[in-house]
Amino acid sequence: MSARVLIVDDLFPNVKLLETKLSLEYFDVIAAMNGPDAIAICEKGLCDIVLLDVMMPGMDGFEVCRRLKNNPVTAHLPVVMVTALDQPADRLRGLDAGADDFLTKPIDDTALFTRVRSLVRLKAVTDELRSRAMASRDFGIGDPLAIATAETGQNADILLVDDRASSAERLATALSQHHSVTVETDPHQALVRATEGSFELALVSLDLKDFDGLRLCSQLRSLDRTRNIPVIMMAEAHDRGRIIRGLDFGVHDYLMRPIDRNELIARVRTQVRRRRFSEVLRGAVQASMELAITDGLTGLHNRRYLDNHLAALFSEAVLRQRPVSALMLDIDRFKSINDTYGHEAGDEVLKAFADRIRTHTRGIDIVARYGGEEIVIILPDAGVEGAHTIAERIRERIEEVPFSIQRDTRSVAVTVSIGVAARNAEDAGPADMLKRADAALYRAKAEGRNRVVAAAA
Amino acid sequence: MSARVLIVDDLFPNVKLLETKLSLEYFDVIAAMNGPDAIAICEKGLCDIVLLDVMMPGMDGFEVCRRLKNNPVTAHLPVVMVTALDQPADRLRGLDAGADDFLTKPIDDTALFTRVRSLVRLKAVTDELRSRAMASRDFGIGDPLAIATAETGQNADILLVDDRASSAERLATALSQHHSVTVETDPHQALVRATEGSFELALVSLDLKDFDGLRLCSQLRSLDRTRNIPVIMMAEAHDRGRIIRGLDFGVHDYLMRPIDRNELIARVRTQVRRRRFSEVLRGAVQASMELAITDGLTGLHNRRYLDNHLAALFSEAVLRQRPVSALMLDIDRFKSINDTYGHEAGDEVLKAFADRIRTHTRGIDIVARYGGEEIVIILPDAGVEGAHTIAERIRERIEEVPFSIQRDTRSVAVTVSIGVAARNAEDAGPADMLKRADAALYRAKAEGRNRVVAAAA
Repeated sequence: MSARVLIVDDLFPNVKLLETKLSLEYFDVIAAMNGPDAIAICEKGLCDIVLLDVMMPGMDGFEVCRRLKNNPVTAHLPVVMVTALDQPADRLRGLDAGADDFLTKPIDDTALFTRVRSLVRLKAVTDELRSRAMASRDFGIGDPLAIATAETGQNADILLVDDRASSAERLATALSQHHSVTVETDPHQALVRATEGSFELALVSLDLKDFDGLRLCSQLRSLDRTRNIPVIMMAEAHDRGRIIRGLDFGVHDYLMRPIDRNELIARVRTQVRRRRFSEVLRGAVQASMELAITDGLTGLHNRRYLDNHLAALFSEAVLRQRPVSALMLDIDRFKSINDTYGHEAGDEVLKAFADRIRTHTRGIDIVARYGGEEIVIILPDAGVEGAHTIAERIRERIEEVPFSIQRDTRSVAVTVSIGVAARNAEDAGPADMLKRADAALYRAKAEGRNRVVAAAA
Repeated sequence: MSARVLIVDDLFPNVKLLETKLSLEYFDVIAAMNGPDAIAICEKGLCDIVLLDVMMPGMDGFEVCRRLKNNPVTAHLPVVMVTALDQPADRLRGLDAGADDFLTKPIDDTALFTRVRSLVRLKAVTDELRSRAMASRDFGIGDPLAIATAETGQNADILLVDDRASSAERLATALSQHHSVTVETDPHQALVRATEGSFELALVSLDLKDFDGLRLCSQLRSLDRTRNIPVIMMAEAHDRGRIIRGLDFGVHDYLMRPIDRNELIARVRTQVRRRRFSEVLRGAVQASMELAITDGLTGLHNRRYLDNHLAALFSEAVLRQRPVSALMLDIDRFKSINDTYGHEAGDEVLKAFADRIRTHTRGIDIVARYGGEEIVIILPDAGVEGAHTIAERIRERIEEVPFSIQRDTRSVAVTVSIGVAARNAEDAGPADMLKRADAALYRAKAEGRNRVVAAAA
């Protein structure tokens, strides 16, 4: 993908050199001559990736990187640190600050372009997710970005694919301090494990006996069930061509053998954080969508969900000539609970009432708060007798044990009246069935409450 | 990105040849020997892109393509048609069937790999969106995929960047039958227009005077405000290198000069459809997230939204030492409306009541249904006098004109009582302010209804 690259360097000739190179590759380039300016540009959302010089007066590159990575607004931006010295210690400091990679001056062009492109592409895939999650924040449903940014990248389930026993053992030992590691020597088996397990990262050796490790990486990146798992390649010096290829098709990072233990730990942490960042955002979007069909107080489905699903469920029952039934439940004298013990006690009863109902219904049933203290249950494949039995069981469970209110300091006896109706051949739609259930509920109330009444078929 | 490529061809040697080539490039390959098998594989979600032979016994490639593109489950899959004959008529039939591109046998490897990679990358970016939108479908919030698939790709706003007057005119004329075209000769101006306009597609000539058209493509693909606009390059035969580069960084498609009018129309339609497909999905996800904070009946915000936002708004007022006020509104004798005219009439009144309130509040105010016939309005920056004035205006507007019910066949007089309270220094939080507004509302009711009462400061 094309992208806006921010070059951060206090020396103008360095900026110019990188700018020319990147511009020729059709990247859009912006420059900042110091840390604070760079952070401001990132916060305004004006770039997609940051190339960051280490040595700068005032705020150095490490500090800039740390700040970007700990700010929910900028944490998703890939950062590549650029330094004149290739000291392992510098490298590590950069990775520890959260950098995605580290390049040494003079910069190798292929390495630079490959890395920038690969990081930008990975970012593009999660940008959509991030912008949806931002919306959920604007709606006040929570702040997933802050939660995602706070993620430390520890205690991950890691799949290590390496068929050299000594290497595998050394790597596993190093990682075990922070993570849980599964070693697999067979690449075919590794793919099976990855699809079946819940790994948060795969480390794959490119030099397996009789198998191209890069192919396993490619499979992991393309299968539906594994494509959200970050992959790190482990390569020998002669594997440069395959590393570039791997980065090009979506492998997240690589380590050169002999693998430095601290670099291993730092790169693994970065990828685990990245993966969890996406997962948190994905979960937030999903959760805020689920809220739309959930009743806030009871956690049951709401009327919107019932209305949307009942029609489809009912048509299917008609089509397949199967029964379907509805229960209409109403807590007896609920108003007097509210009047006597207050609204909060009423809410407590409603919540507990919903919980008891949940334990007596199946996954395929629809249980929805219909409004106020009324709950509707739709029972697919249940005729009127079956539905009556379930209703009676619920009625008993409600009557049996009083409800505790006011934080368990008191308890109150609650009963429920239930109207039952099954679909019949004359029904034009689900509304007719619900109307009969409502009428049956009305009779249950009139006949003295705390009872189940079935509508005539 | 790595990807699962489905090869569809009835001749085994053809399958084998393509399989070997793609496999060496680390793609995962699946094969189908006929149309129905191919469709089944696509429907099961087992591939990311389809390479489709035209000439097959039984169902030919055109028909397979048409079916894939008209099925909501498979419409998002890129399809590249492969044929032995390069007849413009075949090409067109393929593009008309919805194919994303057309390759001629013997296949040029670079063209093949470039195209497959580019299509797969573009798909990866929208996959996340699609899977969120699928969830909204599962929740029964609607079926965005079906709507998105039904999109015809007509009547788009198109930006045409070409500085050769005769070419621009010819292209614009051809496109004007189906779309609205804006011609821009200056590439810098084109970028400004693209960021400011609402274009659904950009057609960019690579051979502009004194400017590399590919750079404009790259800028369009990288700027936040334009990156969702599909871009088609228009190139000369000698531009092959730049075409490959463009596809590589995210340009969607290209046309070779001299441009065939029908091919132009077909490729434009494909890109417009693709863009609208994404927009529909994006809208669906956004809408279902918004449902979570919206009251289904009145369209006002719900209590969940109020609870989440009020705390932040209140703290900000405390911090900045600014006033903030709350109005608590309750329709007078609402129960008797329900009892006399039925629940539906009550709902009609509530909706119209909400609409009138909306016209008398500002964008920064929070207007939320608090429960039943109670509505809360939060007025940032308003003290108790200002809030009282607004409340009085709302009270008058409600009393002034009776509410029509039962589909405009009747009308009913409605009045409202309103309690007003402003934040004061002793408030520990917004709940205290709301409590005072509630108490004031209680007094308004007690003093005879249809009035505004402000809590003592």
